[in-house]
Amino acid sequence: MAHINVPEGVPGIRSLVMFRPETGQYLYELAQVLLRGPSPLTEAEREMIAAYVSSRNNCNFCMKSHAAAARCLLGDNEYLVDGVLRDEFPDGVSGKMKALLKIAGKVQQSGKNVEQSDIDAAHDAGATDMDIHDTVLIAATFSMFNRYVDGLDSFTPANDEEYVPMGKRMVEKGYVLPKTS
Amino acid sequence: MAHINVPEGVPGIRSLVMFRPETGQYLYELAQVLLRGPSPLTEAEREMIAAYVSSRNNCNFCMKSHAAAARCLLGDNEYLVDGVLRDEFPDGVSGKMKALLKIAGKVQQSGKNVEQSDIDAAHDAGATDMDIHDTVLIAATFSMFNRYVDGLDSFTPANDEEYVPMGKRMVEKGYVLPKTS
Repeated sequence: MAHINVPEGVPGIRSLVMFRPETGQYLYELAQVLLRGPSPLTEAEREMIAAYVSSRNNCNFCMKSHAAAARCLLGDNEYLVDGVLRDEFPDGVSGKMKALLKIAGKVQQSGKNVEQSDIDAAHDAGATDMDIHDTVLIAATFSMFNRYVDGLDSFTPANDEEYVPMGKRMVEKGYVLPKTS
Repeated sequence: MAHINVPEGVPGIRSLVMFRPETGQYLYELAQVLLRGPSPLTEAEREMIAAYVSSRNNCNFCMKSHAAAARCLLGDNEYLVDGVLRDEFPDGVSGKMKALLKIAGKVQQSGKNVEQSDIDAAHDAGATDMDIHDTVLIAATFSMFNRYVDGLDSFTPANDEEYVPMGKRMVEKGYVLPKTS
């Protein structure tokens, strides 16, 4: 049971936006433009940043669903996605992504932890200001989503297999507001 | 100088949404519906929750600007707003608001910190599920805005007096996307 009276059995953020579509509408539109709109970062890179931040916030629903989306985008590359989630950045993660994930990890703790040297390292690895902007905003946005989902204790499916079709739907359909009527 | 090449001298989140209006649009719309749209919480209560969470995240820009908006809405009641920011909940803060601020403070740290007893205490003090929802989402949203502003090190005016007209504008005009052209 969630902390408030949301539709039962609907997982994660979906039940919350069904309870409050007035705010949910902008949360979904933000997720869609940030993770699927034009960006110098690939969709897989953006989903990995989302899953990485959610993992560091111990938000199982967001971590598992966005990791599933990243694996789907990468052709079920568990090695890459699961390595990032373990904070081991395996071969195949570019130098640019390593520098950006370091920034995302700092933003997850506090925006104030990001130092000029982190920005310089990202630029040196080929990141543009837009790469850095999008990384910081994805990390900040998932610091919000994670708190929203866990602060209201919304339903988190326990069975890992349920996240596979969820990730596939997030890749194929994007972030579309659930129908509330 | 901010960490990325945003318009100089434009404070806080405004410079960031001028750099990236595609995402900024939804951030402003979310702030507007959450802080100014229909809610069982008054606008002053919502601005106080925003300032309280920003204070706990040491985000001076968001704390000072939303505290200024709350003071403006309360007829320059510094006693009430500044007491909340010091984590002393003075006379004049209702029992319901005290219970909701406690939930907001927990969400600021981690959504997982919110316990059933916190929800029960809020219900006992007269909070509805919608009060609790809006409190959790405001606390989560400012955990995002704080990280966005500080993670990119955007301009934070040092002079406290600059926040007074800013708070007044936020009350009179709401959250309106700055023109980018």
